[in-house]
Amino acid sequence: MSLEPSATESRAGGILRIDLGAIVANWRLLKGKLANGADCAAVVKADAYGLGMAEVAPALHKAGCRVFFVALAEEALALRALLPDTEIHVFSGATADSLPDLARQRIVPVLNSLEQIAAATAFARTSGTALAADIHVDTGMNRLGLEARELAALAGDPGRLAGLDLRLVMSHLACADEPGHPLSARQLAAFHAARAQIPALAGATPSFANSAGIFLGPDYHFALARPGAALYGLKPQNSAPNPMAQVVRLQGKILQVRDVDTPMTVGYGAAHRVTGKARIATVGVGYADGYRQSLTNRGHAYLGDMRVPVVGRVSMDLIALDVSQAPAAAAVPGALVDLLGPQHDADALAAEAQTIGYEILTGLGRRFHRVYVPAKESQPA
Amino acid sequence: MSLEPSATESRAGGILRIDLGAIVANWRLLKGKLANGADCAAVVKADAYGLGMAEVAPALHKAGCRVFFVALAEEALALRALLPDTEIHVFSGATADSLPDLARQRIVPVLNSLEQIAAATAFARTSGTALAADIHVDTGMNRLGLEARELAALAGDPGRLAGLDLRLVMSHLACADEPGHPLSARQLAAFHAARAQIPALAGATPSFANSAGIFLGPDYHFALARPGAALYGLKPQNSAPNPMAQVVRLQGKILQVRDVDTPMTVGYGAAHRVTGKARIATVGVGYADGYRQSLTNRGHAYLGDMRVPVVGRVSMDLIALDVSQAPAAAAVPGALVDLLGPQHDADALAAEAQTIGYEILTGLGRRFHRVYVPAKESQPA
Repeated sequence: MSLEPSATESRAGGILRIDLGAIVANWRLLKGKLANGADCAAVVKADAYGLGMAEVAPALHKAGCRVFFVALAEEALALRALLPDTEIHVFSGATADSLPDLARQRIVPVLNSLEQIAAATAFARTSGTALAADIHVDTGMNRLGLEARELAALAGDPGRLAGLDLRLVMSHLACADEPGHPLSARQLAAFHAARAQIPALAGATPSFANSAGIFLGPDYHFALARPGAALYGLKPQNSAPNPMAQVVRLQGKILQVRDVDTPMTVGYGAAHRVTGKARIATVGVGYADGYRQSLTNRGHAYLGDMRVPVVGRVSMDLIALDVSQAPAAAAVPGALVDLLGPQHDADALAAEAQTIGYEILTGLGRRFHRVYVPAKESQPA
Repeated sequence: MSLEPSATESRAGGILRIDLGAIVANWRLLKGKLANGADCAAVVKADAYGLGMAEVAPALHKAGCRVFFVALAEEALALRALLPDTEIHVFSGATADSLPDLARQRIVPVLNSLEQIAAATAFARTSGTALAADIHVDTGMNRLGLEARELAALAGDPGRLAGLDLRLVMSHLACADEPGHPLSARQLAAFHAARAQIPALAGATPSFANSAGIFLGPDYHFALARPGAALYGLKPQNSAPNPMAQVVRLQGKILQVRDVDTPMTVGYGAAHRVTGKARIATVGVGYADGYRQSLTNRGHAYLGDMRVPVVGRVSMDLIALDVSQAPAAAAVPGALVDLLGPQHDADALAAEAQTIGYEILTGLGRRFHRVYVPAKESQPA
């Protein structure tokens, strides 16, 4: 993989560089924080948070990661085609329709309700073999997972789990990115209580911590952590500096530069008025590429080390930047500006766009020329 | 193409139906509004506004559309592979690097600056044949296109266009969706003036109107209109009813339904508190699918005819809906809720998400099971 300009690059409006070495380094950092020899999985749902599951998952597997999570059955099947011999879990579980495909591909559904458990045990009965499955206990998200009355039903009738080869018992934290939030401790207590309540879960591997949960300390680590966001460089805690390596660099290409010396408006809706002398650079990236419309008159980019503001409305394929303060030799057609990078990461751009860094990453478009920087083979484990 | 459930559908969290017949009907409606026999092109940039260029462009071509516009050279080459014999224009023009590919594929670059014109004429000189190209005159967007001083330079030195086979002379309206906005009339006057100023442009076909421009009346139609948004069902005018056929239906699948009878919070950040008895349905679509985070506690979906609100934060792969008022038999795992459709179109969802319908469409994710409803062959021209 080369960092030199390519023919494809010359025809694109933006270049997205994804550093697989940084993702691997982040996985190792997170794994190193885990207490008591807990294992570290990787969450690669939503196309590895927008960064490309087909590149990210094999890089993590090569670095030693052996357990992967996705959201949907369709994603699990795509991942199986990439990694024939790794452990794959699917958060949304399975329906009667999708169970045969999952079982054939040795994919483990996370069972979230008595209804999903009933479908899984019925399938196991019909197929005559034990079905590998996880149990998701809801401890406070109220989104997916067994609720109190369902846990009581399981406790009262262990036969409901007959035919299942239970692998993980898991739950999901709602507020782990705010250390000290009282809900986290309540969720932890509820997780312990649920495991104690149902003897059949005693042999299953407990998994509790997402990225932020790892930073809550050893009580939250259990046997298997499953980070997603922090692997991709997003900050795991709201109130602390970000310890993760930066993964993404997005550059936009300047298509045209114009000198303005009479008052005029820029873009759709005439949403920005240039009043004095100014230089305006038009860049070939817009909201169809995930550079969000809410960055209108709010976003910033970097031309070299110089911070330059978005002026006017972000349009579908273009933005305009005020480059009046930049050296004239730097702001020229063909030059690249940094829209995302170490100076201005996904969390920072998200703050300007009034959203969260996760949505910036998962919203990255398909038109960029994508360059994957490979992880170094010799990187220490 | 079938509307029956498929194996793939059973593994997806949402189903996106795109009605190619409605797109064709919209193109015919727009073409029918054009005065003086003006032709009607189609803008299929950004993967046909997120709906799939590979399906949309051939459907429009079959209906008689012969002129297509894209934003980037890379998109133009992809379109050429789909439609070997149609006219393709690329808004962002060309660089010295991309011109050989474009010329080989008979793709017409829109030249936006003297610099792009110089690169194009140099290429024509080297290759020894005339290069088909368009000229974009900026009349008030201040984004791309020749500005006043560049027009003056061209007027003073017609040789700057030597070697070009000029096809279109075009400009782009900034405020056409607000009928009566004074900038539209000023842009129209500037377009006439530019064409008069440069004799070499006299033989080029004038193109001015986008979707909204078509609704400004015959003065804005010229010889070729180039709608995008309205083809895909977006409303062309801010203050009038939407005359376009609806194209998109997005359904999310209910994964789990829970009865709540004690006060509790829902989702990340405990952002919604259920106070009384409620039924909450978790649906397998989230912001990674383009169901935007800004719909948190603001969006609405339809379960049959019943409008149901989003409760709690939109998460990456899931939303929660309050289905307390819906019939219990309707709100069950496996049932589909309408997230986008005739009752709640992209413009309506955009208002809830505090963005524009265009961004809703271009942001639609890649994980849906996509179904294309074909245009009827027998549809009248």
